Amino acid sequence: MFSLILNCFILLMILKSVLNKNLTEEIDVLVFLPKNNSFLFSQARVAPAIRYAQNALKTDFPNFHFTLNFADSDSVNQAVFTFADRSCDHKPDLILGPVREYEAAGVVRLASHWNIPVISAGALAVAFRNKDTEYSHLTRIAPSYMKMAEIFTAMFEHFTWRSALLLIEDDMKERDCYFTLEAVFHVMEDYTVRSLTFSQEEPLRGDEMLRNIHDVEVVIMCAGADRIREIMLVAHDQQLTNGSYMFFNVDLFNASSYGNGSWRRGDEYDDNARQAYASLNTVTLLRTVKPEYRNFSIEIKTSTDRLGLHDCSDCGNVNMFVEGFHDAMLLYTAALHEAIKNGYNKKNGREITSYMWNTTFEGSREHMLPPPPWERAAGNVVRQSAKNNKGEL
Amino acid sequence: MFSLILNCFILLMILKSVLNKNLTEEIDVLVFLPKNNSFLFSQARVAPAIRYAQNALKTDFPNFHFTLNFADSDSVNQAVFTFADRSCDHKPDLILGPVREYEAAGVVRLASHWNIPVISAGALAVAFRNKDTEYSHLTRIAPSYMKMAEIFTAMFEHFTWRSALLLIEDDMKERDCYFTLEAVFHVMEDYTVRSLTFSQEEPLRGDEMLRNIHDVEVVIMCAGADRIREIMLVAHDQQLTNGSYMFFNVDLFNASSYGNGSWRRGDEYDDNARQAYASLNTVTLLRTVKPEYRNFSIEIKTSTDRLGLHDCSDCGNVNMFVEGFHDAMLLYTAALHEAIKNGYNKKNGREITSYMWNTTFEGSREHMLPPPPWERAAGNVVRQSAKNNKGEL
Repeated sequence: MFSLILNCFILLMILKSVLNKNLTEEIDVLVFLPKNNSFLFSQARVAPAIRYAQNALKTDFPNFHFTLNFADSDSVNQAVFTFADRSCDHKPDLILGPVREYEAAGVVRLASHWNIPVISAGALAVAFRNKDTEYSHLTRIAPSYMKMAEIFTAMFEHFTWRSALLLIEDDMKERDCYFTLEAVFHVMEDYTVRSLTFSQEEPLRGDEMLRNIHDVEVVIMCAGADRIREIMLVAHDQQLTNGSYMFFNVDLFNASSYGNGSWRRGDEYDDNARQAYASLNTVTLLRTVKPEYRNFSIEIKTSTDRLGLHDCSDCGNVNMFVEGFHDAMLLYTAALHEAIKNGYNKKNGREITSYMWNTTFEGSREHMLPPPPWERAAGNVVRQSAKNNKGEL
Repeated sequence: MFSLILNCFILLMILKSVLNKNLTEEIDVLVFLPKNNSFLFSQARVAPAIRYAQNALKTDFPNFHFTLNFADSDSVNQAVFTFADRSCDHKPDLILGPVREYEAAGVVRLASHWNIPVISAGALAVAFRNKDTEYSHLTRIAPSYMKMAEIFTAMFEHFTWRSALLLIEDDMKERDCYFTLEAVFHVMEDYTVRSLTFSQEEPLRGDEMLRNIHDVEVVIMCAGADRIREIMLVAHDQQLTNGSYMFFNVDLFNASSYGNGSWRRGDEYDDNARQAYASLNTVTLLRTVKPEYRNFSIEIKTSTDRLGLHDCSDCGNVNMFVEGFHDAMLLYTAALHEAIKNGYNKKNGREITSYMWNTTFEGSREHMLPPPPWERAAGNVVRQSAKNNKGEL
């Protein structure tokens, strides 16, 4: 009799543990973000948004327990090394980041091979479109450079422009500008598009550069703010800013390092620069105006301020990366929930990834997610730098 | 008394095992070579030379037991995935290969991070010079593209040429030609060097291409054999092959896929092509003529023939890769021996690598190895394609 009771008790315990196991998911998240706050996607900037999402998810998904592991990705190979080293004992269930192209490439390839979903608010370059093989497990939560290039195509169609000159400052390291305008080159293959690349170190050969302008209608530039000003001054000198040519400056993230539309330097060229910038249009990402976004933004700012970071006065500013990684948590959770409902588990990376690709969800901003390979159809906006000849934004 | 004898016996057994352990080294070698025999460095071509070296080493180093593990590296990420997967349980002591640039990059980075020496007869691109960080554990046993570029510089100096046009066929996959002539671009920065890249798929725009020739003295090409012939025919049509310009065709490995100097196709252009090729010089690697090399070569051919490969009639031909990987075994063994003599062991990858960099050794060919970053100072040779207007080599 006692033995029967004991057996029943053991059976109940096993059943309970099996049930609990089904209900509770321990999700190990490995987050690759740099510590260096000069990056708009540094740990200090983005982590509060990820934790905010983690907390918010507790209400709707009390059985999902997320463990966040923040790993550095400051130098180019650090992320993939950390990932390989850690994964020998125990592979993570989800990877967030890296943002930068070369780092993301290494991590995403290995993660795809190991069947682990990766969500990044970066990895914006054209190459990551390749979802058939090496980047099969990557979900890009932010609008990729291809989206920006499509905005240009739409403008070219609308204004019946046929030709463009791309001016690209290439640092041969991060290569942000190269990857940004590479997309324009890919998307606009039906147009006449020429490109000129120059390095950060060399002095600008503006005259030579603008010799290539004469048979095009549009100049699209990606470069540091000072370099953009230099080019615009040369263009102004050569009377190219009288309306015959369109000048675009791509500065998607309002990063102060890129051409942020400001002509003022307090030097003798300010007046010319102001006039030149009247012909300059800046392409940037549009911010949402939904009240939910405002609340989210205030919350993030408060938690970052609480950290009291001495090397980063603007770390509380919510940018595309902060939003993106927040939304990544929501997107993953909804997909995992869906996968489990359909008999899969957290280790079914490919299936979870496919649930992320075919869904609509409400993040910090509202979005419709088309089927893979999707990129969020967020709005780009062209703002004119110096309307009314004031020139400051 | 019995207990004392037993204790002594146990002590002796331990001592013997310690001594044996010191004397015998089990060396786990992971070899990354493709199975596809269209590569000059396929497993079937190279493996006999590595095994030949393994056998030869038994006499001088009877305590070194090499275990060779051949892994495929046919698709671009396969090598690094295999390496990461296998290394969780047990890391190899030495890696041979990969040859191709993109595969080698991933493997060498991870191996350097894990302190494992890598020797390759490939990885010839300029980027692998960077021995300070990512490629710290790579030893290149074959003459790199930089060496070839230095031969060009020497020729330019000798003939007081000042300017060159590089014509590069870029497949955007393996990018052999791109990496080959990239080195010329790097090394010859004191000269006026312009480059034009074209794809394999597009029809040749020869006229447009050669419009760039007028202010240069030398044309250096890397492309498929048919493409080289096309360019030379256009050059001939435009009367550029009358001695006013020097034409070079880089075909380091005598690969039939590259411009191998043969003008004959049996078509109506053969006669023009023959005349055009009188102005074409081919840069290739010089074979050694030492008798030891002849013996080595016969041995390798015999063992490959024994395999009876139906898809590879020329697999018994000894090329730079076959020689290189053979010599890699000899070089590693000498360095390991030196390292052990100095109190290190097989897991001291950095030290073993440094012993490989500062040594002179006799391989299948004779070489002096300068200090790091070294590359074998093998001879390149320029051969004139069509001397005496015969044109076949």
